Amino acid sequence: MKLHGVFALLLCIDCGAVQAAPLPIRVNGARIVQHLQALSEFGKNPQGGVSRVAYSDADRAGRQYVLGLMREAGLDVSIDTAGNLVGKHAGKDASLKPIVIGSHIDSVPEGGNYDGDVGSLGAIEAAQMFRERGVALRHPLQVIIFEDEEGVMLGSTAITQGLDAARLNSVSQSGKIVREGIKFLGGDPERLTEARRQPGSIAGYIELHIEQGAVLEQQHAQIGVVEGIVGILDSEVTVEGLANHAGTTPMNQRHDALLAAARFVEMLNREVTNVPGRQVGTVGWIKAQPGAYNVIPGQVTLGMELRDLDAGRIKALEQRIRNEADNIGRMNGTTFHFSPQQLSTPALTDRRVQALIEQSAKGLGLSTLHLPSGAGHDAQEMAALGPIGMIFIPSVGGISHSPREFSRPGDIENGVNVLLQSVLALDRAPELR
Amino acid sequence: MKLHGVFALLLCIDCGAVQAAPLPIRVNGARIVQHLQALSEFGKNPQGGVSRVAYSDADRAGRQYVLGLMREAGLDVSIDTAGNLVGKHAGKDASLKPIVIGSHIDSVPEGGNYDGDVGSLGAIEAAQMFRERGVALRHPLQVIIFEDEEGVMLGSTAITQGLDAARLNSVSQSGKIVREGIKFLGGDPERLTEARRQPGSIAGYIELHIEQGAVLEQQHAQIGVVEGIVGILDSEVTVEGLANHAGTTPMNQRHDALLAAARFVEMLNREVTNVPGRQVGTVGWIKAQPGAYNVIPGQVTLGMELRDLDAGRIKALEQRIRNEADNIGRMNGTTFHFSPQQLSTPALTDRRVQALIEQSAKGLGLSTLHLPSGAGHDAQEMAALGPIGMIFIPSVGGISHSPREFSRPGDIENGVNVLLQSVLALDRAPELR
Repeated sequence: MKLHGVFALLLCIDCGAVQAAPLPIRVNGARIVQHLQALSEFGKNPQGGVSRVAYSDADRAGRQYVLGLMREAGLDVSIDTAGNLVGKHAGKDASLKPIVIGSHIDSVPEGGNYDGDVGSLGAIEAAQMFRERGVALRHPLQVIIFEDEEGVMLGSTAITQGLDAARLNSVSQSGKIVREGIKFLGGDPERLTEARRQPGSIAGYIELHIEQGAVLEQQHAQIGVVEGIVGILDSEVTVEGLANHAGTTPMNQRHDALLAAARFVEMLNREVTNVPGRQVGTVGWIKAQPGAYNVIPGQVTLGMELRDLDAGRIKALEQRIRNEADNIGRMNGTTFHFSPQQLSTPALTDRRVQALIEQSAKGLGLSTLHLPSGAGHDAQEMAALGPIGMIFIPSVGGISHSPREFSRPGDIENGVNVLLQSVLALDRAPELR
Repeated sequence: MKLHGVFALLLCIDCGAVQAAPLPIRVNGARIVQHLQALSEFGKNPQGGVSRVAYSDADRAGRQYVLGLMREAGLDVSIDTAGNLVGKHAGKDASLKPIVIGSHIDSVPEGGNYDGDVGSLGAIEAAQMFRERGVALRHPLQVIIFEDEEGVMLGSTAITQGLDAARLNSVSQSGKIVREGIKFLGGDPERLTEARRQPGSIAGYIELHIEQGAVLEQQHAQIGVVEGIVGILDSEVTVEGLANHAGTTPMNQRHDALLAAARFVEMLNREVTNVPGRQVGTVGWIKAQPGAYNVIPGQVTLGMELRDLDAGRIKALEQRIRNEADNIGRMNGTTFHFSPQQLSTPALTDRRVQALIEQSAKGLGLSTLHLPSGAGHDAQEMAALGPIGMIFIPSVGGISHSPREFSRPGDIENGVNVLLQSVLALDRAPELR
């Protein structure tokens, strides 16, 4: 018998025998916090938080830092043609499919230091602990740091279904065309299909993430076992009015596109909250043209977003909003146009992976709560390749996508321990189909 | 007796005598249209209209073109330290104060080819006709093409009251700091006081302009005699909420700054239209931060503008709007802040100059209408220096600050003829005090 790792001598009270048993593996909480701190320097904002939007200089530099950590964790790291960082470690049984863990490190503009970062550095910490404790998994292990999750989920989409020309040619938050951004990160958009993976090609995917909501905190639960990830409908809405002089055009002769857009923002909020349920709807950006004090806006574009676990409900809500927009347009002679929607379909997590996560948390003495994810995650794309699971940890005040986003070091350490134990449990489990 | 100009032989039917009398001076309508066309090339937009915002390359190039026209009209042209083009012609009596005419050629972003341009090229045409017909005025004549009227009225303000550091250091529509913009046009911001003029230093100022509204057109009047220029209150409004994740933040836990801003836009429209009168109110620009599909906006800034002929009414309206904004903020836990307002006080035109314009129009057989100006003009600044008057011509459909802005060539020619005759009448009149 060959022994690896750190052992404790256990005394059997009943039989009097002394036995060597492995100490339970626990991750290095201080190291995770230190890595989070170091990563937060890339794209740091003077007023707090980060703007490390995908394909920015800060994003590339941050990824370079993370690549170094992956190598230290003993992973064989490469950049796939979609620009994702992929770190591999062989398993004992080469015939088994890989267990994949990971997340992303790009942020929204003026975002925080936990969304994506915790899961990315947590996955690397798990790999590092396996190395340090000499744990040899049956399955190959892969850590993936996806690119452009916030943009949304481009890196994981490239792996699961590819990126069409429209997405490759779209402008990212960094200002770069996505195609150029992928090149900038070391990918190769001309050979994008090489990053594709086939359905059934993974043993499972587990992602640790901050909740980004306040449910765990309000319910005093330490670990969230995610039931599913909501679908998201994005649509660019254009309001066409008539630009005119703000001083000489009487109020009753205006076709003010911003006034109509304002009524739209209010109406969307009303429609979303008028019916029971956990659906949410947001207008996150708006642009009025030409955009001067003394000109009535002739055109307004804005971004509308709807989310729910039920795709049918999202579409019904969208239809009501479109109908109401037509009514608003008639009020002051403006017209509404909706871009072709991008709908990411809801994705349910695998019930057996949920159970593994649940048991791992319980084994660590942590309280759990089952809940849906209101945010989109790379996991929902990875669901196309095999069973997925997600682990949530509490976000203080439920604040996310904000410099004030914060998760406590203890909660982060708990989450990474659950991730590590869940990987061990998945590694031992019979293959999930 | 020394005769100048073009004469007609008149036969006196009653007395049988033949007498030489000067032909009435009429401006060259075709030339004005040709100059307007040439000027429209500077900053021309592919989709129509111009973006010749102050201090842009197009603005400087356009001013260079106009400077050439002024020289052709026999004017002695210089650029004052504020960047205004000043073209002078001596009068017969050097002890008299100058008669000043002019306008501006800078545009709003995506503006049209008539606002400012008609009055600028019309003033130059009048000077050109005086030269061609050998008309020697008693008073010195000055044609001024003011800089940055749209920004607002910086060139004329520099002449009448100077520019403080805040305005010199503000960012103009071109992106340039005003101080740099003035230098760019050939002015010298370090010697700005040299452009100042004293109250009582001009015999009068007359500006020809398009109406930018639809009153003349709707009332079938050919010439507008302007009674006064409305005051304008500009204020930058900031709404502070809390940026948060658009998927994970339940609708009832949001502090959405854009939702509050939308309610503000609607409320402003309601407050302005709720009371009788000709006051107008506009939100012309808006910016939501951080500005992404998946983030609830945490901060919104927007530009609000109020106009009326009565400064007291403007301030009362603003107070009601501020009070209502506080109520809106309380609805979703957001707060409203108003920047220190910039209030340009209303300016009434001189009744005697109104009468000269009225008589000049009647003498040309043109129908007139007295009306206020809903738009601000350099004339309101020049009112600090002496009596002012303004001549309006119809705008088709009342459209202005838009590529669709249009005034008919016949109306433009009428307007310039009235301007020329009004200058002759002012030149003959006893000095106005």
